[in-house]
Amino acid sequence: MEFWFEFASTYSYPAAMRIGKLASEAGAPLEWRPFLLGPIFAKQGWDTSPFNIYAAKGNYMWRDLERTCDELGIAFRKPTVFPRNGLLAARIACTFAEAPWVGDFVRGVYVANFARDEEISDPTVLGSLLSNLGHDASAIVESAQASGAKAMLRAQTDKAVEYGIFGSPTVRVDRELFWGNDRIEAALRWHARRRLHP
Amino acid sequence: MEFWFEFASTYSYPAAMRIGKLASEAGAPLEWRPFLLGPIFAKQGWDTSPFNIYAAKGNYMWRDLERTCDELGIAFRKPTVFPRNGLLAARIACTFAEAPWVGDFVRGVYVANFARDEEISDPTVLGSLLSNLGHDASAIVESAQASGAKAMLRAQTDKAVEYGIFGSPTVRVDRELFWGNDRIEAALRWHARRRLHP
Repeated sequence: MEFWFEFASTYSYPAAMRIGKLASEAGAPLEWRPFLLGPIFAKQGWDTSPFNIYAAKGNYMWRDLERTCDELGIAFRKPTVFPRNGLLAARIACTFAEAPWVGDFVRGVYVANFARDEEISDPTVLGSLLSNLGHDASAIVESAQASGAKAMLRAQTDKAVEYGIFGSPTVRVDRELFWGNDRIEAALRWHARRRLHP
Repeated sequence: MEFWFEFASTYSYPAAMRIGKLASEAGAPLEWRPFLLGPIFAKQGWDTSPFNIYAAKGNYMWRDLERTCDELGIAFRKPTVFPRNGLLAARIACTFAEAPWVGDFVRGVYVANFARDEEISDPTVLGSLLSNLGHDASAIVESAQASGAKAMLRAQTDKAVEYGIFGSPTVRVDRELFWGNDRIEAALRWHARRRLHP
């Protein structure tokens, strides 16, 4: 089960907080797949989040997100900057996608953005997050900014487009896409069904 | 509990098929509120459904809708025309919103569009639907095309915009909006909570 996500994305926050536990309970190995929505939105003629472009939709989303987090018991504070630039965080998550700590890092970045209103594009914010997880922050940040790491994230974003992904979060199971925090359960049901009837 | 819907809208199909029973089980009196998305989309610069404008999103929607209907046990056939013009059907549903048969009519129109691939803008299609429900179809169609009926639907669409509604289906409870077939349960939970703690 692949979890495709962009760090700036609002509904990806509750999704990222939930999916690790849900996948584990379902016996579905989870792959963390960060990608960038910016280039995808740009191709649709959007230079920012559609939630900023379409006011009614944006107003609704913030209220709905607040209610959603409230129901799930997840802390939420509306960020003062939206969307925040998640490029460096995505490069780190992409480079270290196989590391056992990647889930904790991803959740930490989302909490920083959507519960603590921190500037996740700031390397010192990400650095202290990594340090708190017990890692050598500067070594990690440095390797995530190497040209190979940059190319890896670009390739992963291209792969997202190739798969038909257009928004975040998207869960991909067995070539099927499930878009939105509200589709995680459907993705899990699909996974369970495929295990019974492969 | 108000159910705001546009007949051309895809996810409104499973929502319309489900909501009457769910609202009734929850003891929530349901008000059927047809409106038009066309004028709302036009203000955003869209001359057709965003599912037609944004191909990846459209492709996803059709597959997701098929899966959703499949899980709910609702018949589905992708319409050969999308979006279909639901103006006359909306005028009928608006004019007769208080009639005891409005729910059956609404579901009938959605089934015609999304399960039988029928042209719901055709007065004869709507007429036979009304006849099958035991009504005087020509009298109903005629009164729905009177100038008062037209004005009523325009006013209702203005009201939708005033409420912040931007898509269909939207359930409105206690001034809160719940957008999407996948938010009906959240709307019902909100309604139940408000009854306990008014």
